Amino acid sequence: VSLSTDSVWVDGTLANSVPADDRGLNLADGVFETLRVEEGKVALANSHRDRLGRGLKLLAFSEPDEQAENALKLAVDALNEALPNATGSLRVTVTRGSGPRGYAPPDNPQIRVISRFAKGLPVAAKPARAAVSPIFWAEQPQFAGAKLLARTEQVMALNWAKQAGYDDAVMTTADGRCISTASGNIFCRQGQDLFTPRLTSCGIAGTRRRAIVDYWAQALGYTVAQTDITVDQLDSFDEVFSCNAIQGVRSLAAIDAFTFGDHSAALALAPCIHGEYPL
Amino acid sequence: VSLSTDSVWVDGTLANSVPADDRGLNLADGVFETLRVEEGKVALANSHRDRLGRGLKLLAFSEPDEQAENALKLAVDALNEALPNATGSLRVTVTRGSGPRGYAPPDNPQIRVISRFAKGLPVAAKPARAAVSPIFWAEQPQFAGAKLLARTEQVMALNWAKQAGYDDAVMTTADGRCISTASGNIFCRQGQDLFTPRLTSCGIAGTRRRAIVDYWAQALGYTVAQTDITVDQLDSFDEVFSCNAIQGVRSLAAIDAFTFGDHSAALALAPCIHGEYPL
Repeated sequence: VSLSTDSVWVDGTLANSVPADDRGLNLADGVFETLRVEEGKVALANSHRDRLGRGLKLLAFSEPDEQAENALKLAVDALNEALPNATGSLRVTVTRGSGPRGYAPPDNPQIRVISRFAKGLPVAAKPARAAVSPIFWAEQPQFAGAKLLARTEQVMALNWAKQAGYDDAVMTTADGRCISTASGNIFCRQGQDLFTPRLTSCGIAGTRRRAIVDYWAQALGYTVAQTDITVDQLDSFDEVFSCNAIQGVRSLAAIDAFTFGDHSAALALAPCIHGEYPL
Repeated sequence: VSLSTDSVWVDGTLANSVPADDRGLNLADGVFETLRVEEGKVALANSHRDRLGRGLKLLAFSEPDEQAENALKLAVDALNEALPNATGSLRVTVTRGSGPRGYAPPDNPQIRVISRFAKGLPVAAKPARAAVSPIFWAEQPQFAGAKLLARTEQVMALNWAKQAGYDDAVMTTADGRCISTASGNIFCRQGQDLFTPRLTSCGIAGTRRRAIVDYWAQALGYTVAQTDITVDQLDSFDEVFSCNAIQGVRSLAAIDAFTFGDHSAALALAPCIHGEYPL
């Protein structure tokens, strides 16, 4: 059993494997965060902690906020001890730990923290050519916004995009409301007004999306609104871009036949997006 | 790192752990079957193979039917070699194997087969007291029927039921159509007529559900229809029961305030449900 060249820790100890009875593996019973680490420091750590805590609470973990904080600390401390001042992506997975066969959680689950560090960060990518994915988001308001381990729709949307020769996919609900790209949130701009889909029924509430909505849009002179955006409306925007914690901001050059040549908001946001802001 | 007392194989070799970069763990990128094994023989093996193949096809695996057949053979052969003539449940998980960070499947994924055997089978349980779960199924017709690794809704529904003091939960869509119990399919009976929810938008297409729909209902003198059943309609039935591959048929004594005292169809089906029938 050999692993890739990434470094992996299980509950803070270097390891290359996870017990086969882990409920994360067997039932997707857990959540995760992917942290951007620059010279040993996590960008927007508090936002990641907040979302992780909310996810654990939705899964009825016993002390979600404390468990979230502890999990991130455990993972980051282990990284910094083994690889001081490292730069790369650190994925932190928190599962309900081991359990017997069946769906029911154990009475006293011992949560498991699996962290995985990949050295290096992507360089700025050229504007993406995207298409609207035929694989759509199921609407599940009870878990909307959380970064659950269950990511089938995004995996299949990105797989479809790759096969079809696109860089990324725009994902919608079954009735054609845009929600995200396959691996990030999406923003559309008309003049000085930014719009991003409401995530009340599905989608992941990204830390960079939050940074734009809560702070950077206004700081850079834009308005921002969370709203419904249908596929048909995409043509009416001057600019579309995606964002996530590792890639940062990425412009979209095209979504199917709609093309976008103005990337001014993405260019303005890119240098800010991983930076701390007053929460 | 210690595992429970179950026996586990990874790709047919005894093991107690799985590589931490497995996409099943990281992204729920896989499917599973839980087989009832009696004295070394799998009940309804062909139905499990069919569903596993369909699930792998929905996940765009390269040779889904062949991979499904091979995975089940690998798991069952390993079990029979290590523990001849065993009786118990054998869970077979098929994932897209290891991969680097990110959602995109690797170009040439090496699938991984994780199998786990728990000795013993449950004895017939007394009729279950159930309640309608506040956690509902998201509608996702693109993956409906498949037994994906992503089982958050059922985990949380069963967790809710346990906390609330019930044996099981009836799970619905957001608009109140019954789909399943937390860990099995559901049938309702009115006189000689059996009804089970259509699974076109969500739910798992159980092997025992299939056995009843395709063969046993008619063989025992019942009609059977796949239809919509709302929570409000449950009161109009003479009998309600659930079924799955391990428990078999289980009567429901109550769903919230609705009670069911007649368990005649469940009693008639119970001795047949794991038996082979002309496909």
